[in-house]
Amino acid sequence: MTIIVSHPSREKIDWWIEQLQALLPTWTIRPIHEPGDPAAVTYAVVWKPATGAFLPFPHLKAIVSLGAGIDHVLADAELPRQVPIIRTVGTDLTQRMREYVALHVLRHHRDMPTIAANQREKRWAQLVVPPATDRTVGVMGLGNLGGTAAATLATLGFETLGWSRTKREIAGVTTFSGEDEFPAFIERCEILVCLLPLTEATTGILNATLFDRLPEGASLINAGRGPHLVEDDLLAALESGRLGHATLDVFDIEPLPADHPFWTHPGVTVTPHIASLIDAPTGSRIVAANIERFEREGSVPDLADAGRGY
Amino acid sequence: MTIIVSHPSREKIDWWIEQLQALLPTWTIRPIHEPGDPAAVTYAVVWKPATGAFLPFPHLKAIVSLGAGIDHVLADAELPRQVPIIRTVGTDLTQRMREYVALHVLRHHRDMPTIAANQREKRWAQLVVPPATDRTVGVMGLGNLGGTAAATLATLGFETLGWSRTKREIAGVTTFSGEDEFPAFIERCEILVCLLPLTEATTGILNATLFDRLPEGASLINAGRGPHLVEDDLLAALESGRLGHATLDVFDIEPLPADHPFWTHPGVTVTPHIASLIDAPTGSRIVAANIERFEREGSVPDLADAGRGY
Repeated sequence: MTIIVSHPSREKIDWWIEQLQALLPTWTIRPIHEPGDPAAVTYAVVWKPATGAFLPFPHLKAIVSLGAGIDHVLADAELPRQVPIIRTVGTDLTQRMREYVALHVLRHHRDMPTIAANQREKRWAQLVVPPATDRTVGVMGLGNLGGTAAATLATLGFETLGWSRTKREIAGVTTFSGEDEFPAFIERCEILVCLLPLTEATTGILNATLFDRLPEGASLINAGRGPHLVEDDLLAALESGRLGHATLDVFDIEPLPADHPFWTHPGVTVTPHIASLIDAPTGSRIVAANIERFEREGSVPDLADAGRGY
Repeated sequence: MTIIVSHPSREKIDWWIEQLQALLPTWTIRPIHEPGDPAAVTYAVVWKPATGAFLPFPHLKAIVSLGAGIDHVLADAELPRQVPIIRTVGTDLTQRMREYVALHVLRHHRDMPTIAANQREKRWAQLVVPPATDRTVGVMGLGNLGGTAAATLATLGFETLGWSRTKREIAGVTTFSGEDEFPAFIERCEILVCLLPLTEATTGILNATLFDRLPEGASLINAGRGPHLVEDDLLAALESGRLGHATLDVFDIEPLPADHPFWTHPGVTVTPHIASLIDAPTGSRIVAANIERFEREGSVPDLADAGRGY
């Protein structure tokens, strides 16, 4: 009964092991790279595992993704496809994401980037913006995170639209689905939030063609995954004024390299993949409960669909 | 039937007259300083009128404050005290204020000032903050604006407290009232929002004594009036670390003078009195409706109580 933990940060590995060990005292929990009997390993708790990371472990019952997305697991070309993948979601992650989305939509809506620039120049300029009731915001992706974020924007007074692959109903939100309804959705989004899962179909979806369909000067918030965005297309759209500002929490390469133009671009707000960063105490309670339930019942509600990609 | 308009900005005077004239076509509407029969003036629509501004007009039926507060009218030592004062409030102003409060509470909660500073230094640092459900926020002043703002913070998941002179009940908000209950309120506020009316009792209420009662490192948001805050006490509290950050929308002197230390202080976010800045189209609809109703009925629901001060 061994659980292995894999994470690019050694510090985070220790952080998760300490928390999980307290909740699962009868289990052996160790870093993936430390010695131990590979045959005893039944669960792997992972964030961005290396290619082939799971090959040494013949008796894995499940892989636990330390997040709602599983793209970082599916990226492993040597992934044992028969092993179920458990997503880590829960009210804590949805709460954090709705905070992030509310904060950054309001920040664009009230033009805080301009107000902050004015403060640096000691300029007192009373910009009048419309109330949220006259502002249309769109959320792409209406799963646990996107659906809750969209509902929150609606309660703040925004005219809120939502788009997903399959039709969803959310109180206060006008929903669209599929490719057919995408044009009617996108052309109205003054502030666009991406919370899609990363799949083959959604890779590169935030591109020049999409930007050209948005209202002139629209803002973009990407809290999905870095590869949703074609970075060069964003830079060109900001340059042309097609887009007014972008807030990005996810990037093709993380941490964002020091020489990346996003760091210093006046039209880009960079947040370091913290939109729905789980803390170890809360996250480990969710992970431990999922492992215990999977042991008992052989499944959990938050099982991913590897074929679908999320 | 003449309405006069007084505002420190000549541009704003023209802005309001244009909008009001379209809604009240049978009225003569002119700037306060332009020629005309003083005896014909029955309404004055004002923001920060000069001392003695109303003395030339013997037949004023009401003074309309271009905002929820009337402190800027009561500041006139020669104000004709028998003339009723109409406050300009409405769903538009409460909507804008709840947006501002939600934005800036979330901004402190998620430590955006540090994230923005990190971006300037190209530093990728994943700070973990608690979810809003583990964060206590307090609102001082539970009138139209404060009550709606507090209710909004509760829907975002914050543990929300409210304090007012007289007891109020707000769904999802733990309310306190009067001086007796103030200590129990203030000692829990990790983020404190001031939306009090400015009266003799509330002038200087945001001072060193209050700051010392807040949890260490608390944040302050002042969207009430400048004189609520003792500016030197705030600077000292930021210096000592007693307070972590402050967002200020209102100041003793507005526009904030170019040499004021708040402009460049890393612990202070300056917004130029835009928390609930009304736009002319919406504001003039409220003002015109109030004038028409006062003409018909001799009163309006949003009449201020000059004795109480708000």
